[in-house]
Amino acid sequence: MNNNQDFIDFINSGDKLFPCLSIDCVIFGFHDNQLKILLLKFKNTDFFALPGGFIDKDENIDDAAKQVLKKRTGLENIYLEQFYTFGETNRVDIEIHKTIMLKNGVTPEPGHWLLQRFVTVGYYALVDFSKAVPTPDLFSDAWDWYDINEMPPLAFDHENISRKALETLRLMLDFKLIGFNLLPETFTMAELQSLYETILGKKLIRANFQRKILSLEILERLDKKWSGGAHKAPYLYRFDEKKAKDFLEGKTLY
Amino acid sequence: MNNNQDFIDFINSGDKLFPCLSIDCVIFGFHDNQLKILLLKFKNTDFFALPGGFIDKDENIDDAAKQVLKKRTGLENIYLEQFYTFGETNRVDIEIHKTIMLKNGVTPEPGHWLLQRFVTVGYYALVDFSKAVPTPDLFSDAWDWYDINEMPPLAFDHENISRKALETLRLMLDFKLIGFNLLPETFTMAELQSLYETILGKKLIRANFQRKILSLEILERLDKKWSGGAHKAPYLYRFDEKKAKDFLEGKTLY
Repeated sequence: MNNNQDFIDFINSGDKLFPCLSIDCVIFGFHDNQLKILLLKFKNTDFFALPGGFIDKDENIDDAAKQVLKKRTGLENIYLEQFYTFGETNRVDIEIHKTIMLKNGVTPEPGHWLLQRFVTVGYYALVDFSKAVPTPDLFSDAWDWYDINEMPPLAFDHENISRKALETLRLMLDFKLIGFNLLPETFTMAELQSLYETILGKKLIRANFQRKILSLEILERLDKKWSGGAHKAPYLYRFDEKKAKDFLEGKTLY
Repeated sequence: MNNNQDFIDFINSGDKLFPCLSIDCVIFGFHDNQLKILLLKFKNTDFFALPGGFIDKDENIDDAAKQVLKKRTGLENIYLEQFYTFGETNRVDIEIHKTIMLKNGVTPEPGHWLLQRFVTVGYYALVDFSKAVPTPDLFSDAWDWYDINEMPPLAFDHENISRKALETLRLMLDFKLIGFNLLPETFTMAELQSLYETILGKKLIRANFQRKILSLEILERLDKKWSGGAHKAPYLYRFDEKKAKDFLEGKTLY
């Protein structure tokens, strides 16, 4: 397949797209107490960026975001949420778009659709990165998971977008309980605390964490885990969907 | 001033605007235990809608939203936050836009900028409606505050936008403590509870509310309020900016 011809064809098909609006996805990957972020490198350049895309004229923007997540990770039915729309006039450096085109065999005419001011709608997702199969798009030739503290410099305002996504992820850990879809059906308090510590990026005090999480009344305590050894066996917990629903609807807040 | 000529001039000046993107503001007003929402009626029609606007080609979208709030309420430095971008393909009924133009002396040509698919960025604000001076825009001839349970049917997807704004407002009452900017510097627990009850739209149990709010550790307790009577005087509280900042930065969550 001549990827470059596909790239050129796409660059010349701006009239099929909703104008001046893009999507950027901050895809967080969690596994083995590591929190990573999926980044791409634009073809034949050294520009790193978030995976993203454009919106067809007859496509809902939330659907366009789902497509980006599915195509770039191979995963479906994943927690994906819109978190902010970035509309600063100077957020996109048009010279970068120009360079990407030139390095890939396209000399853009003045007024080309990609050389306009773009507003972008930001989405974030949380996936188990060991289950994802990152796949490049027409614009990229390298994809990888980066530790969130060791990201390369990003093009455009993508560092700002990533930072705001991380803030939202951390806030939503409590308010939408989104961490639980990354745990097995039953888990110990230590496993749950470890997940929270990794996403929040800090150590938590064990007694405080346990009190706080139990006070949400969203966990069901099961039998103790059989450890096979002489050590004290920890309790196993299960996430109670029904109670969580009540919590998320604010029924138990007061 | 010939408002209608201004309307016609604006309708013909689409080339100065960022394309196919609008702003809608859900402006909640609180006063005397009432929660209201500011609605407009499009000129010479019976279509009710949220106040909104468009974005100049060289304007940040957040600034455009601030302008809408300022121009429509006369208020500045108000809590205003972007909460969602609505991008369903069918969210705007173009016939309504056409009718508004026809009823106001404009016969739109096919392909007119207002007859396109629009994506809209939603913002919500919380103001003291007794301090606001609602002012109509070029598109409207009536403005009023409506009880959130007694709104007229709204045009486009504005009922959906309002509902999502109210959900966000209720969620953010806890997570961003936004209710406090509507209270005087010192207040009683009963006054605070009343604010929460009005915004949440339900009665709260006094002991639970007090325990929950005090557990956030964001209030400073002052001397008892002198009531002048024989009844038990209630304590006065003050919102502690420093502690609230710690809370909002998640420092006290665990």
